[in-house]
Amino acid sequence: MMDTQRPLDALGKSINTNITVFLKDGKEIKGRLKAYDLHMNVALENAKFEEKEYPMIVVRGDNVLYVSL
Amino acid sequence: MMDTQRPLDALGKSINTNITVFLKDGKEIKGRLKAYDLHMNVALENAKFEEKEYPMIVVRGDNVLYVSL
Amino acid sequence: MMDTQRPLDALGKSINTNITVFLKDGKEIKGRLKAYDLHMNVALENAKFEEKEYPMIVVRGDNVLYVSL
Amino acid sequence: MMDTQRPLDALGKSINTNITVFLKDGKEIKGRLKAYDLHMNVALENAKFEEKEYPMIVVRGDNVLYVSL
Amino acid sequence: MMDTQRPLDALGKSINTNITVFLKDGKEIKGRLKAYDLHMNVALENAKFEEKEYPMIVVRGDNVLYVSL
Amino acid sequence: MMDTQRPLDALGKSINTNITVFLKDGKEIKGRLKAYDLHMNVALENAKFEEKEYPMIVVRGDNVLYVSL
Amino acid sequence: MMDTQRPLDALGKSINTNITVFLKDGKEIKGRLKAYDLHMNVALENAKFEEKEYPMIVVRGDNVLYVSL
Repeated sequence: MMDTQRPLDALGKSINTNITVFLKDGKEIKGRLKAYDLHMNVALENAKFEEKEYPMIVVRGDNVLYVSL
Repeated sequence: MMDTQRPLDALGKSINTNITVFLKDGKEIKGRLKAYDLHMNVALENAKFEEKEYPMIVVRGDNVLYVSL
Repeated sequence: MMDTQRPLDALGKSINTNITVFLKDGKEIKGRLKAYDLHMNVALENAKFEEKEYPMIVVRGDNVLYVSL
Repeated sequence: MMDTQRPLDALGKSINTNITVFLKDGKEIKGRLKAYDLHMNVALENAKFEEKEYPMIVVRGDNVLYVSL
Repeated sequence: MMDTQRPLDALGKSINTNITVFLKDGKEIKGRLKAYDLHMNVALENAKFEEKEYPMIVVRGDNVLYVSL
Repeated sequence: MMDTQRPLDALGKSINTNITVFLKDGKEIKGRLKAYDLHMNVALENAKFEEKEYPMIVVRGDNVLYVSL
Repeated sequence: MMDTQRPLDALGKSINTNITVFLKDGKEIKGRLKAYDLHMNVALENAKFEEKEYPMIVVRGDNVLYVSL
């Protein structure tokens, strides 16, 4: 690669900020990013999904279309 | 990664507490988390799914959309 | 992980007992658990599926939603 | 694991016997098991599928729901 | 395994012979097998598919239901 | 391989240029490529998707059909 | 294997020639093959897809049904 930066490094810069996870089925999950891994599994604090709120959720990465930071 | 915490560590903190597993097909399984692994396979004690109760189930991780802790 | 137990260990404790495998398509296979592996492939003795009985079947793990022990 | 036997070992005991492979789409392939591997790829001799017969086929394991021995 | 033969070895014995690749969607590709690998990727010479002919094609293994030798 | 170049090297040459990511569902995401990896996960700056704009998104590679450079 | 040739070697012989990539959804992408890898990711120069032309695209291998050389 000509660039030493990896795409998931962008997630690392967003730890403890609010992000939006766009799922493959068109839905969105919002929350404060607490942790992620290389599969794009993400732990979100104070998450909102379909008008419900959750103190902490872990989203399985294979459901993700993209993450907006 | 800028954060040393991994997203599945959040599951580790919830061992022996009641969690809800939201499946990709929109259904939910509730139960007491006994164990998990990196695929998000989870062992749940006293699990409830579709109005039935089970002493112990093991959910295959690839069915999971997200887990609420 | 904060817990040394792995979710599939629960299957190990159920060797030679009757279990129910719930498939992703909503169907169920019952039988006596003889062996399993980390993919949740399971060998079932005296298995029952869709009103038929089989002396021994091997179910491929990727069809599994959850296993009830 | 508490049991040293692996689920696919059951296939090893059925080499050169007639087995039935049940596919995820509900169809069945019958034949004499000549070889298998850990993906549940199977080589079947004198195979029958949808009213046709084949001297030798190799079924890709990811199509398999379960194998009856 | 109780048998030292692997299922894909059957493909090795069919190099330079005409085979039929049955796809998951029910279609068939015929051709002279030139090479294969463990994913069941196959290179076929003088291949026929849907009434067209091709001098050489490479089929991606994950589309394969079974191969008839 | 007869060629030392890898297909994803083409992405490396496009860092900091505008690219279009064509998704499997027929939609398009445009943006300035900041980083990519071998799974075709891509980080896009000033991304546009379905008439919305995002300062930075990370697209999960398994949604990608192709990338136009 | 009885044959030392691997199926993707056929792609290596087609570098800098025009090929056609047939996708799983029935569509075709044509272009000059510049690079490929073991996942059948391919970089195509002067690519044509659905009546549009692109100077360079990278197709993700998991969309491919077969490649005609």
